[in-house]
Amino acid sequence: MYGAGKTPDQVAGIAEKLFAASDVVLVTRVGAEAFARIREKIPEANYNELGRLAWADRRPERTLTPGVVVAAAGTSDLPVAEEAALTAQLMGCDVTRLTDVGVAGLHRLTDRLGELQKARAVVAVAGMEGALPTVIGGLVAAPVIAVPTSVGYGASFNGLAALLAMLNSCAPGVAVVNIDNGFGAGFMAAQIACGTGLHPTEGL
Amino acid sequence: MYGAGKTPDQVAGIAEKLFAASDVVLVTRVGAEAFARIREKIPEANYNELGRLAWADRRPERTLTPGVVVAAAGTSDLPVAEEAALTAQLMGCDVTRLTDVGVAGLHRLTDRLGELQKARAVVAVAGMEGALPTVIGGLVAAPVIAVPTSVGYGASFNGLAALLAMLNSCAPGVAVVNIDNGFGAGFMAAQIACGTGLHPTEGL
Amino acid sequence: MYGAGKTPDQVAGIAEKLFAASDVVLVTRVGAEAFARIREKIPEANYNELGRLAWADRRPERTLTPGVVVAAAGTSDLPVAEEAALTAQLMGCDVTRLTDVGVAGLHRLTDRLGELQKARAVVAVAGMEGALPTVIGGLVAAPVIAVPTSVGYGASFNGLAALLAMLNSCAPGVAVVNIDNGFGAGFMAAQIACGTGLHPTEGL
Amino acid sequence: MYGAGKTPDQVAGIAEKLFAASDVVLVTRVGAEAFARIREKIPEANYNELGRLAWADRRPERTLTPGVVVAAAGTSDLPVAEEAALTAQLMGCDVTRLTDVGVAGLHRLTDRLGELQKARAVVAVAGMEGALPTVIGGLVAAPVIAVPTSVGYGASFNGLAALLAMLNSCAPGVAVVNIDNGFGAGFMAAQIACGTGLHPTEGL
Amino acid sequence: MYGAGKTPDQVAGIAEKLFAASDVVLVTRVGAEAFARIREKIPEANYNELGRLAWADRRPERTLTPGVVVAAAGTSDLPVAEEAALTAQLMGCDVTRLTDVGVAGLHRLTDRLGELQKARAVVAVAGMEGALPTVIGGLVAAPVIAVPTSVGYGASFNGLAALLAMLNSCAPGVAVVNIDNGFGAGFMAAQIACGTGLHPTEGL
Amino acid sequence: MYGAGKTPDQVAGIAEKLFAASDVVLVTRVGAEAFARIREKIPEANYNELGRLAWADRRPERTLTPGVVVAAAGTSDLPVAEEAALTAQLMGCDVTRLTDVGVAGLHRLTDRLGELQKARAVVAVAGMEGALPTVIGGLVAAPVIAVPTSVGYGASFNGLAALLAMLNSCAPGVAVVNIDNGFGAGFMAAQIACGTGLHPTEGL
Amino acid sequence: MYGAGKTPDQVAGIAEKLFAASDVVLVTRVGAEAFARIREKIPEANYNELGRLAWADRRPERTLTPGVVVAAAGTSDLPVAEEAALTAQLMGCDVTRLTDVGVAGLHRLTDRLGELQKARAVVAVAGMEGALPTVIGGLVAAPVIAVPTSVGYGASFNGLAALLAMLNSCAPGVAVVNIDNGFGAGFMAAQIACGTGLHPTEGL
Amino acid sequence: MYGAGKTPDQVAGIAEKLFAASDVVLVTRVGAEAFARIREKIPEANYNELGRLAWADRRPERTLTPGVVVAAAGTSDLPVAEEAALTAQLMGCDVTRLTDVGVAGLHRLTDRLGELQKARAVVAVAGMEGALPTVIGGLVAAPVIAVPTSVGYGASFNGLAALLAMLNSCAPGVAVVNIDNGFGAGFMAAQIACGTGLHPTEGL
Repeated sequence: MYGAGKTPDQVAGIAEKLFAASDVVLVTRVGAEAFARIREKIPEANYNELGRLAWADRRPERTLTPGVVVAAAGTSDLPVAEEAALTAQLMGCDVTRLTDVGVAGLHRLTDRLGELQKARAVVAVAGMEGALPTVIGGLVAAPVIAVPTSVGYGASFNGLAALLAMLNSCAPGVAVVNIDNGFGAGFMAAQIACGTGLHPTEGL
Repeated sequence: MYGAGKTPDQVAGIAEKLFAASDVVLVTRVGAEAFARIREKIPEANYNELGRLAWADRRPERTLTPGVVVAAAGTSDLPVAEEAALTAQLMGCDVTRLTDVGVAGLHRLTDRLGELQKARAVVAVAGMEGALPTVIGGLVAAPVIAVPTSVGYGASFNGLAALLAMLNSCAPGVAVVNIDNGFGAGFMAAQIACGTGLHPTEGL
Repeated sequence: MYGAGKTPDQVAGIAEKLFAASDVVLVTRVGAEAFARIREKIPEANYNELGRLAWADRRPERTLTPGVVVAAAGTSDLPVAEEAALTAQLMGCDVTRLTDVGVAGLHRLTDRLGELQKARAVVAVAGMEGALPTVIGGLVAAPVIAVPTSVGYGASFNGLAALLAMLNSCAPGVAVVNIDNGFGAGFMAAQIACGTGLHPTEGL
Repeated sequence: MYGAGKTPDQVAGIAEKLFAASDVVLVTRVGAEAFARIREKIPEANYNELGRLAWADRRPERTLTPGVVVAAAGTSDLPVAEEAALTAQLMGCDVTRLTDVGVAGLHRLTDRLGELQKARAVVAVAGMEGALPTVIGGLVAAPVIAVPTSVGYGASFNGLAALLAMLNSCAPGVAVVNIDNGFGAGFMAAQIACGTGLHPTEGL
Repeated sequence: MYGAGKTPDQVAGIAEKLFAASDVVLVTRVGAEAFARIREKIPEANYNELGRLAWADRRPERTLTPGVVVAAAGTSDLPVAEEAALTAQLMGCDVTRLTDVGVAGLHRLTDRLGELQKARAVVAVAGMEGALPTVIGGLVAAPVIAVPTSVGYGASFNGLAALLAMLNSCAPGVAVVNIDNGFGAGFMAAQIACGTGLHPTEGL
Repeated sequence: MYGAGKTPDQVAGIAEKLFAASDVVLVTRVGAEAFARIREKIPEANYNELGRLAWADRRPERTLTPGVVVAAAGTSDLPVAEEAALTAQLMGCDVTRLTDVGVAGLHRLTDRLGELQKARAVVAVAGMEGALPTVIGGLVAAPVIAVPTSVGYGASFNGLAALLAMLNSCAPGVAVVNIDNGFGAGFMAAQIACGTGLHPTEGL
Repeated sequence: MYGAGKTPDQVAGIAEKLFAASDVVLVTRVGAEAFARIREKIPEANYNELGRLAWADRRPERTLTPGVVVAAAGTSDLPVAEEAALTAQLMGCDVTRLTDVGVAGLHRLTDRLGELQKARAVVAVAGMEGALPTVIGGLVAAPVIAVPTSVGYGASFNGLAALLAMLNSCAPGVAVVNIDNGFGAGFMAAQIACGTGLHPTEGL
Repeated sequence: MYGAGKTPDQVAGIAEKLFAASDVVLVTRVGAEAFARIREKIPEANYNELGRLAWADRRPERTLTPGVVVAAAGTSDLPVAEEAALTAQLMGCDVTRLTDVGVAGLHRLTDRLGELQKARAVVAVAGMEGALPTVIGGLVAAPVIAVPTSVGYGASFNGLAALLAMLNSCAPGVAVVNIDNGFGAGFMAAQIACGTGLHPTEGL
């Protein structure tokens, strides 16, 4: 569930209903106040402050399937990356997180080449010039899901520059989701890497 | 190899070199004249007029892996859809083609539900309002790779309208490639569905 | 009257004047505070919190003409849909409301096919990828008035994506009003379906 | 059927098929050469050079229903206006054509006020600053379907200026179709004014 | 002096300096608080709340030259129109103000034809579809300076729709200034109509 | 009359009609072939190849009023500048032409300061960065009509860059016409400087 | 370090870490509150209120190399200009600041010609029509780094107009950085003029 | 001199005049036919077919100064890269050319690290996602001049995607010139690296 633009009470109400109908619920873009309300209704709810994510899961413990790597270019991209990573985890994936691997410091990226090349699906999160997915796409055989973030200023136009760069990637095997849509990227990475036959209408 | 914007001689020359270095070569956006030159240099080359595709493959016959569905909204979307389908085939996938399943005639789409739901990766090709990937995304559990086409006029702005619609899909599990980029979509679908561990720099 | 961008006092003052000159008045985009001021001046005024609409009507009770269906893709589209529905009602139409019929869950839409096909004019309200009017346009013989909403984020560009998608609808019989312009869509639907010969300058 | 971007042979072939399956066929954006091919296959086909329209109709003579007015701002808007008018005629409407009624010469418009105010649906076609639908919307009680044309230069951006102006019309009762989409506007005007219960998939 | 984006103290300080160096000073986009500070420093300062304008003038009383008409389409356009009118007045023009003459109610405009046709320069202020300057341009022989306003919503894009419409006016004799730039329009109207040989660097 | 987008026969036919109804006719954007056809019908017609302008004038010789200066930044801006100059001449103005006065070579502009400062209206024509009107606006007391041209490449976006720059001029007394609209600029300059009370519908 | 969009605590924490690892630290876009936190952690930190810059430098006193000129068009451009100047200073340059040299008052610019022509690199900062770099580019032999600012309103689109103008400069030797990116411009000017072989990852 | 949009005769005429007034002349965007005409007038003229460049130089042989590296991402970027390289050469620089170093094949770029790090100014030419300048900016201490090319399709919007990416580079020391503006980039690189005190108006 997408929490932005709703009041804390609305968020908590919908979350409660979803969790009554399903064993797992994830709410994105949740502020601290809204999470407090959710907690009142769903005591087992968890919160990730960085990603502004709330979730609850009453399914029995499961073995997570490895294969998803989530890479973030800069520290400002971390909230969106965390949204992707948590989404994939709730869908059953064991997620490897790579942070601060922006292309202006290539060695930080190439140092993690081993982890990247083991991936069955990579989520690459970047704002500004949005070059990370292309560089990763040239290094791995797995599909890369690119997430532009609204990080940047001036002519970044709230993520448009990164979005266009990613759509024009000169590496094959790169596809793009909407600006800041960590949820969508994590969802698709899990579909690819963890074989979750989860139908969209069942669950998240 | 992307053939647009090159002379027939350039296209044929590069194709010859690629086929000398690899067992398979695919050239997109090839006119009839350029194909004639390719044929002079690569006698076993094939041509698909609709998709304006030329290719040659000297690998021994292989069993194709099923799992890729390529769906095209209208007849004008067929060249791009064919580019996606042939790319996935050359990467080892057995591809199911659905044509004329645009959302203004829903029954033509729902009639093919069985085939769609068997897919492990769907390529959805559409111009104009670009709604096909969203509707398919709501019907299947597999990831959907959306390809906007430059089909349309006026405020379609050469595919921009479809591109934006696809990026804003309200169905999860949808990611988008560049306008008319059938090759990129077919490539990723094959990565997902046919487990081809082909590294981008080896081959196509 | 369009209430946004005016102070509560200005809104109430203009509403009072309009209601003195006419038997019915409708104010859109009205906050709770502004409505309180309106109520001081027009005690019989009503308020719809969801749609942020205030109105008063001293005409004798009338039989409403059926024929307008207002369909909203998601819950976030409801305020704009309600604005359209109330506008048509005040113009003499009996309005059928369909909610949560977004195209990523087709069955929820096709379940309401009977109601849709009885319409003489359909208002289809959607944000994000804006596909609802096209899908409805393919299912009904009546004209469809499409309303893009500013719902969405990132590359929705505050409704631009939905607007472009609707303008490029591949179904005939679809025309579009401005982003979030529920009033305009309801007005036109009433002109079409309820034969209200109301001249723009008389009334609303 | 939309004829642009197809070869004369393709156009003629599709037209023949459509006319075999239905009693009426309309092809838009048809050049003289393509029409010649159509004529070879459909001897009773007609051609309108201004609007680049070809059509054939084997239905018995019908009484046309009055109520549609098609107004064009300038002479450059006439092809699109003719496309709208002929579409509405083939759907059973008796169409009144107003030409050269652009808003920079108001008297030419107000001279036709009687005809305008008798309309049950008005199609208003204009390029450049796109003001005609708004001015007409203020003069009539019927709904106005606005068609921006790609007429103009420089900052008209191929009709974008007119499109935006029409979407922002300060007159209620105005909705907009895509740039140069005379067919869509005529189709909707006929739905409104002539009560044609024609389903999109039956016929045109 | 342009007051937006400056603190009240900055505004008052600059105004004081300008008024020390010249006999007249005009500050646009001034809030009530900033005006209070100006008053402390320039006791003879005046304030126009609607237009958010502050000014002071110690020149001896002058006979104003007639010839400037400032026309505003709607009530929301009045602040910008007032900025234009006051600018022209301070430059020595006797200004005629026409309000609520938007093109969706033509008779309100044509009722003022006499005043319009006496003008030597017309400032036409409009938001939304921006049609007013074109209609006036067709009615008068004097040059028309068009001012788009940021009034509107959705696809008005903060005045872009009106700006484009005005640039594409089909009436000759229309030129355009920046969105909401009442000052610039009033300045030019005064240059034209009142023969003020005021050099930009002397005064305002 | 605007000649672009019409066949030579259409252009000549309309020109003939206009010249029958008026003593002067001006056709812009006329190719050599179209002019040949005009000459057949109007033997006294003249042609300016640079500006692609054709005109005829049977009014008795008149004394031209000085006061209009047309300044062009570069040689590529000359056709548009010539269109402005000839328009003003036909409306009775004696026009001073300044060429190659772009702002990257300031001295060429300041060398002509005397002529500029005598102007009662200046037309400033520039493409690329569009800075000429601002620099002139800072040097003269007369109003400046800015004409962006479609000269440039890449991010000039066919004149959009120059258009935006001119709208944002930091000099007061600058207003803008559409890209390449030399006719509109010359028309307004003549209205201002030569007091031509010509009504738009009489003549040009 | 870019301070915008971070909490005061985050800013201070990162600044402390950077200053522990390097002898110099510069933080841009820092509010007063965030600076107070920085001061708690880095007592020798300095603050520039106009440019909203904080910095600390424990390197021994150095002789600054002359050669960088930073020119600002208007007072609103000063914060960005100061960011550029301070950046270049911390990289070892002795910076000449020129203020209020906008092109609408040419003499203020040409009065400083001597200083400009001594530069080995010029940073030219301007909003609105963005003409300053072009005019300077025509006057000096040194490279000009253009910085568009988000100063302006309406069709300045937050600096887009100035950005496009600068990219289209008709003077050679002009390159552009992102809107408001004073840091980037100052950094490059220092690279050019002061021969600082500073690698991006060492220091600032 | 910029040759595009001029006839062969115009190009040759201007080139002849420039070469009469200076010892060196460079014409960009010259077709084979125009070069033939140039050769008739300037027998010592040279031609580079790839870059579509013509030039002549009668200065005595000079020692070229090393320090400029021109790097091109793909083969389609070579014409623009050649334009930059030749410009810098004519200004006295010894230019190192790196080709096919796009970021999707990192090793091809890092293999050339030695040459890159010796540069005093780097020109980085790339289309599509435009990531090359950022990656190079992170590897070298010299300033990087980024040139977006119009290479790409769909959402590259003729180089806009690359342009935006470069403006948003997360590496400092990167500035951008207009799309395809190899001349401007080479000019600035020579100013920086080869200390050519050439004034823009003297020569090229």
